[in-house]
Amino acid sequence: MKKHLTKADIENLERFPKVNLINSITGYKSANLIGTKSVEGISNLAVFNSVCHLGSSPAMLHFTLRPHTVARHTYENILATKYFTVNQINASIIEEAHYTSASFEENISEFETTGLTEEYKSSFLAPYVAESAIQIGCEYVNTYEIKENGCLLIIGAVKHLYFEENLQGKDGFLNLEKGETVCINGLDAYALPNPLARYEYARPNEEVKEKILNGDK
Amino acid sequence: MKKHLTKADIENLERFPKVNLINSITGYKSANLIGTKSVEGISNLAVFNSVCHLGSSPAMLHFTLRPHTVARHTYENILATKYFTVNQINASIIEEAHYTSASFEENISEFETTGLTEEYKSSFLAPYVAESAIQIGCEYVNTYEIKENGCLLIIGAVKHLYFEENLQGKDGFLNLEKGETVCINGLDAYALPNPLARYEYARPNEEVKEKILNGDK
Repeated sequence: MKKHLTKADIENLERFPKVNLINSITGYKSANLIGTKSVEGISNLAVFNSVCHLGSSPAMLHFTLRPHTVARHTYENILATKYFTVNQINASIIEEAHYTSASFEENISEFETTGLTEEYKSSFLAPYVAESAIQIGCEYVNTYEIKENGCLLIIGAVKHLYFEENLQGKDGFLNLEKGETVCINGLDAYALPNPLARYEYARPNEEVKEKILNGDK
Repeated sequence: MKKHLTKADIENLERFPKVNLINSITGYKSANLIGTKSVEGISNLAVFNSVCHLGSSPAMLHFTLRPHTVARHTYENILATKYFTVNQINASIIEEAHYTSASFEENISEFETTGLTEEYKSSFLAPYVAESAIQIGCEYVNTYEIKENGCLLIIGAVKHLYFEENLQGKDGFLNLEKGETVCINGLDAYALPNPLARYEYARPNEEVKEKILNGDK
């Protein structure tokens, strides 16, 4: 039996039940840590559940920032320095990843408070998380303001990509389960996916065919 | 050992290995079916891996559309009728969900070709997927064109929300694993998440505390 809530019912919910509910309705979200550096040289790390693929040629991604969030240090650093990293959260660092959402003071690095390892390579300004199996070095491209609620959509271009070699199948695909990449439900629930199936490109009037799961066709 | 690809290395990859790789790097994506109806009365259903939460007050979501995709029927119908539904994909319908990505002709409904059940309720124009444990009736709000690659970001407002009552915890949270909601890796891999932990709101200089997983605090 399904429960039905109208727009008005949702608006009338108390703040936290509303936030918990509405953050779950679109399904699971990606789980990433965004690493930046301030012009004063302080590194910053923040958990994001809104990083999404935006295109492969050129390789770009986007994420959203709510108005007045504590993660504003991330955005200020990106605007000031033009670079940031995206680091996938795996099952062994979910507690540390969540702890980056606490409102630390501006002169304190979340790498220090969480114990996650700050990594620099290929002369890239922003810090990577050494514990992540997949790391992306991004250049800031643009911001779109969503005028309906003041959220910001930030676009980044992929300049560097690092991933554990054993994750990749012969068709290019990354087996995220081998890196124990997690996903997020709502604001605060971390989950570990298990692969079910991959399917071939679908065509009308043909049955859907399964692919080899790991991409080694 | 991590493999390193620069922007130029990625650009030089062949088309399909590049698409497979870059679609995996941001982690798992949400798995939803968007239901629409044309002005001629033909229903349409299409799988999307880019639906994201955009705010709780008011409740809004967004998804992206690549230029020249087969899913353009979805967008044309949304512009013409102003309404669409978002239906979570669960483990029992992943093959049907994937089959909606085939390029069916305009006068053919994917509900017919997949066998998924078309559902109408509360005088809402767009069709829901009866098999989905979580269904959202949305009103079209706006489109933002991402000028860097021609992608469209489409914003919808939540008008109706339906979910299986047993999914919800006392704090509002939806236990997606009870509905067997899946997520997507890359273009074509479906995975089923298992919950690991929920955490309390994080505060500086306090240990991260676990919450009861199902939201029944």
